[in-house]
Amino acid sequence: MNRQTRQAARRRPGRPAAGATDQRERLLDAALASFADKGIAATSLRALAQASGLTAAMLNYYFGTRERLVEAVVEERLLPAIAEQRDRLVPVLEGDSRTLAERFVAGLHTTIERHPWLPALWVREVLTEGGELRHVFLERIGPVLPQPLVERFAAGQARGEISRELDPRLLFVSLIGLTMLPFAAAPLWRQVFDAEDINSERMLSHTLALLAGGLKP
Amino acid sequence: MNRQTRQAARRRPGRPAAGATDQRERLLDAALASFADKGIAATSLRALAQASGLTAAMLNYYFGTRERLVEAVVEERLLPAIAEQRDRLVPVLEGDSRTLAERFVAGLHTTIERHPWLPALWVREVLTEGGELRHVFLERIGPVLPQPLVERFAAGQARGEISRELDPRLLFVSLIGLTMLPFAAAPLWRQVFDAEDINSERMLSHTLALLAGGLKP
Repeated sequence: MNRQTRQAARRRPGRPAAGATDQRERLLDAALASFADKGIAATSLRALAQASGLTAAMLNYYFGTRERLVEAVVEERLLPAIAEQRDRLVPVLEGDSRTLAERFVAGLHTTIERHPWLPALWVREVLTEGGELRHVFLERIGPVLPQPLVERFAAGQARGEISRELDPRLLFVSLIGLTMLPFAAAPLWRQVFDAEDINSERMLSHTLALLAGGLKP
Repeated sequence: MNRQTRQAARRRPGRPAAGATDQRERLLDAALASFADKGIAATSLRALAQASGLTAAMLNYYFGTRERLVEAVVEERLLPAIAEQRDRLVPVLEGDSRTLAERFVAGLHTTIERHPWLPALWVREVLTEGGELRHVFLERIGPVLPQPLVERFAAGQARGEISRELDPRLLFVSLIGLTMLPFAAAPLWRQVFDAEDINSERMLSHTLALLAGGLKP
């Protein structure tokens, strides 16, 4: 039983037995893949049920409406991935803010490796104007990850740990641009630059080198 | 007559007189705005004609098919904006590669100020998997801007101008992540960080400060 399954189980005391839980989890995974690949609006519930080997009636039994399916994907897949990323930063949150920025970048690489759907979903449903998960970012993610980080960057800057020429808020934006964007755009730059040799490790060492010099006071 | 209009005029020797050219230009602008705002697939040709105060028959007269409309927007709006950005780099192309990277970033700020539709169009139709302009980036933009730049970065790195820990190809990706992404994501970070006070000038000085330290050998 993975972490999400356990969380789902805790949340649903009246849920059906194990086989049904697996079906529900399979549906969530298929929904997530389709949301990232085609977008939420373009995801057909019928195609989703078929891809998971279930009937439309079963999909209806588990989620009822598209809204409840999206909500379940947010609660049981997206927000747990964000919580994972946040938990990685707890040990360094109060320390040196340059270390915190580096840990954020390295941690996000690990989070994306564990949840490879994250960059495409972010582009489609958060970054794109009209994306269906923008409100989730603004209301649920903003207060738990970007805002606390920016506070720490500002405090660290006041202590002289990072360059005074940087803006702590824009620094968070820069970190996203240096991590999420390269993953989301990988199919493009790999082809334009014939860059099949560049793996995630090389991406990380490049970005950490850029930041090491860039953040220094 | 603006620059694009003149270019369009040069390209279309048999075009109708001035009033008609204005109508055609208005249609192109309306199409561009809708492509950036809603996406190419979700743009209704009928709504486009209405928004430009023209009939569907006139739209048909100017462009015939959706494909020809997209092609005209690419040739007469998108590629000229990219050519503008490229032209800005010509004077510094053979010089110091750190200066070239900084000029690319500053130039892209100017390009985006002149063509504010660029970041949203890029997110929707290039960065998003399945975007309708991915092939334009791969075939028409890649060879004229990213590839020559990366060659210069690699040569500059060999001359010791930029840190050996960076990857010249990933450096181009980083520059896009540090410029296009902050503009595309501005409605999000402005709200989450209560950052109405951050203007384009502050964005530029932040990014140049990050790069000044980050590229240094």
